[in-house]
Amino acid sequence: MNLERVLPAEIEQRSFEIIEEELAKRKIVLPEEEKPITKRVIHTSADFDYAETMTYSDHAVDQIKDLILSGADIVTDTNMALAGINKKILAEFGGEVRCFMAEPEIAKRAAEQGCTRAAASMEWAAKELTKPAIFAIGNAPTALISLYDMLEEGTYRPAFVIGVPVGFVNVEAAKELILTTDIPCIVNRGRKGGSNVAAAIVNAVLYQLQRPS
Amino acid sequence: MNLERVLPAEIEQRSFEIIEEELAKRKIVLPEEEKPITKRVIHTSADFDYAETMTYSDHAVDQIKDLILSGADIVTDTNMALAGINKKILAEFGGEVRCFMAEPEIAKRAAEQGCTRAAASMEWAAKELTKPAIFAIGNAPTALISLYDMLEEGTYRPAFVIGVPVGFVNVEAAKELILTTDIPCIVNRGRKGGSNVAAAIVNAVLYQLQRPS
Repeated sequence: MNLERVLPAEIEQRSFEIIEEELAKRKIVLPEEEKPITKRVIHTSADFDYAETMTYSDHAVDQIKDLILSGADIVTDTNMALAGINKKILAEFGGEVRCFMAEPEIAKRAAEQGCTRAAASMEWAAKELTKPAIFAIGNAPTALISLYDMLEEGTYRPAFVIGVPVGFVNVEAAKELILTTDIPCIVNRGRKGGSNVAAAIVNAVLYQLQRPS
Repeated sequence: MNLERVLPAEIEQRSFEIIEEELAKRKIVLPEEEKPITKRVIHTSADFDYAETMTYSDHAVDQIKDLILSGADIVTDTNMALAGINKKILAEFGGEVRCFMAEPEIAKRAAEQGCTRAAASMEWAAKELTKPAIFAIGNAPTALISLYDMLEEGTYRPAFVIGVPVGFVNVEAAKELILTTDIPCIVNRGRKGGSNVAAAIVNAVLYQLQRPS
């Protein structure tokens, strides 16, 4: 197998061309608005299943763009997603990425309430945050369930949910729960997802909004 | 779709049981040594393709365990993998995780040499490190190619390579290059991988070595 000669600056562009070619081969046509996001998810996973399972609520892409442009924060359920999100571009719009998972108070509350740290961190975020927030959930379905419960109880309403936890226990059901609500969302149906996928979705939006430097 | 009632502490165990059941259904039998690692990769991706593509050099699992027990450092090519690796357990054995990607000097060298930052950071690591290192590459095939080139030139020999970059340009070829060498390695053949996968492999080994607290 031979190495392809590609300049460092051109690797990403060449990757996206290959993704485009393979989508065409599979006869998959993605809506124009959603395309850069779904393609970046495929870029980060090399998994074309996402072309079939990524699910967007009506006008989701416009809504998440508007939120970022107006300085919304992003709350994640893992430090890996926090590490992966382009914080520099987000900061240009006035937003920051928050992850409360490592707060000592979160572990304590989770133990007291018999819930996961992810669920406790969502309730914490709902109380802490003073401006609209995009929740980018790449790991814990219990975080999505906690957001759903708060919405049902009328105690908190997330501005946007990126619902891409990965795994085997309640992952599919938690995503379907979010899809039953009227919260604007981007969800990957099924078991697949991850903090890398959550970060890729946020970054795809940020790169589209990026001001020329 | 109903939510399954699982206690927070039991979610991971239940997930691994489901993975075990599905491997059995697919008639996939993993070697005993490799099983906890490949299963954790499936746990982090919900992707059973890994059961077919994860590739271990002879005695790779024993070798990586010995390295960690003797205090080897881990070098990664992304801050996401750095965020995902359990640094607390690694520190118990005397190791730490290093990622040189964000060093200002790396961007400068990459620009001067016309190579990627990942490649430049491997050469930097080769010069900086004073003890044996495990290279956990979850993003850039150019990092693997750089390690291969240094080995060929006789300028540096990594103690172990986890070769799981993801993507479309030279990813498969770079992994095959590493598999032609005599460096002990764990490689995921094909396009798939990622910093989450790199972190999962390291963590699977760490959890097996973990001293009871």
